[in-house]
Amino acid sequence: MAAATEHFRLYGYEKTTVSDLASAIGYSKAYIYKFFDSKQAIGEVICANSVQGILAAVEQSVAAATTASDQIRQMFRSLIDASITLFLADRKLYDIALVAVRDRWPLVTAFEEQIKATLAQILKRGRKSGEFERKTPLDETVSALFLVIAPYVNPLLLPHNLDNAKQATVLLPSLILRSLAP
Amino acid sequence: MAAATEHFRLYGYEKTTVSDLASAIGYSKAYIYKFFDSKQAIGEVICANSVQGILAAVEQSVAAATTASDQIRQMFRSLIDASITLFLADRKLYDIALVAVRDRWPLVTAFEEQIKATLAQILKRGRKSGEFERKTPLDETVSALFLVIAPYVNPLLLPHNLDNAKQATVLLPSLILRSLAP
Repeated sequence: MAAATEHFRLYGYEKTTVSDLASAIGYSKAYIYKFFDSKQAIGEVICANSVQGILAAVEQSVAAATTASDQIRQMFRSLIDASITLFLADRKLYDIALVAVRDRWPLVTAFEEQIKATLAQILKRGRKSGEFERKTPLDETVSALFLVIAPYVNPLLLPHNLDNAKQATVLLPSLILRSLAP
Repeated sequence: MAAATEHFRLYGYEKTTVSDLASAIGYSKAYIYKFFDSKQAIGEVICANSVQGILAAVEQSVAAATTASDQIRQMFRSLIDASITLFLADRKLYDIALVAVRDRWPLVTAFEEQIKATLAQILKRGRKSGEFERKTPLDETVSALFLVIAPYVNPLLLPHNLDNAKQATVLLPSLILRSLAP
């Protein structure tokens, strides 16, 4: 995995074949296929690590917040920050994320579902505590909040949206909290 | 202009030079330079027509709405619809919009300022009529609303965001109207 990651980092994911990878690492193609069904299976492991890193950062920031309102702010901040960090850290490796989203790898759906589940959890807490309004169906609010944050997380959009990210981290949670007011 | 538009439509804007254009149209390069300083100057005229079309659609939909709340809904709907129509109508010509945004042609800034001015006008009306809250600084609300709509209008983002557009047209104005409630 380390050798494959390094190879993708240097030559990009899309242009590399399993044969390229095998000869670069010094194993036979057959040996690699013993462990991975396809190049995508290797890409999925690398991508899953990044996704886990982002989700861990979000979970940590949400756990540290004391109110549901603060959780909304912290979640937006950590999610945008972690996504930008991943993009800036290694643009060639980021190509894997682009392919993952374009081809709808299962982990992309799983990631989105996890983000929505965390949003739903925060909203339920805020509705229970009286911080948030309860009239709008929970699903609708979750979907709307997800739409607002997606352009700063989705790898197809984020690279074109970096100029707005700093302003977004401040203005969007404020707008969302106004929309959630009882 | 018609011949240049047709040429860009067939061969794309980026790959065409003024020489290509001149020989395709049957004029000399010098003749074209009599009217246009550069290829960009030709692109700007084509782009300005599209921008005018979008702004006219927005203006019309806002004028037809009876309340500030309805104006917000109509503005979002017409702006997203007009942007998608432009993208779907001719993807090769849409390349000009991509270049315009990437290189920050003056008309891009003018377009953004016009959208913000229309938003400010609607917000002022709604604040006056009591439909909208008045605590948040007007500039902050305008910037936040612009951030929410931008991913469905900005030519760098919209093509990657088409799947969300239909949901966005409904959910985002509703979220925004909740955020504007007094």
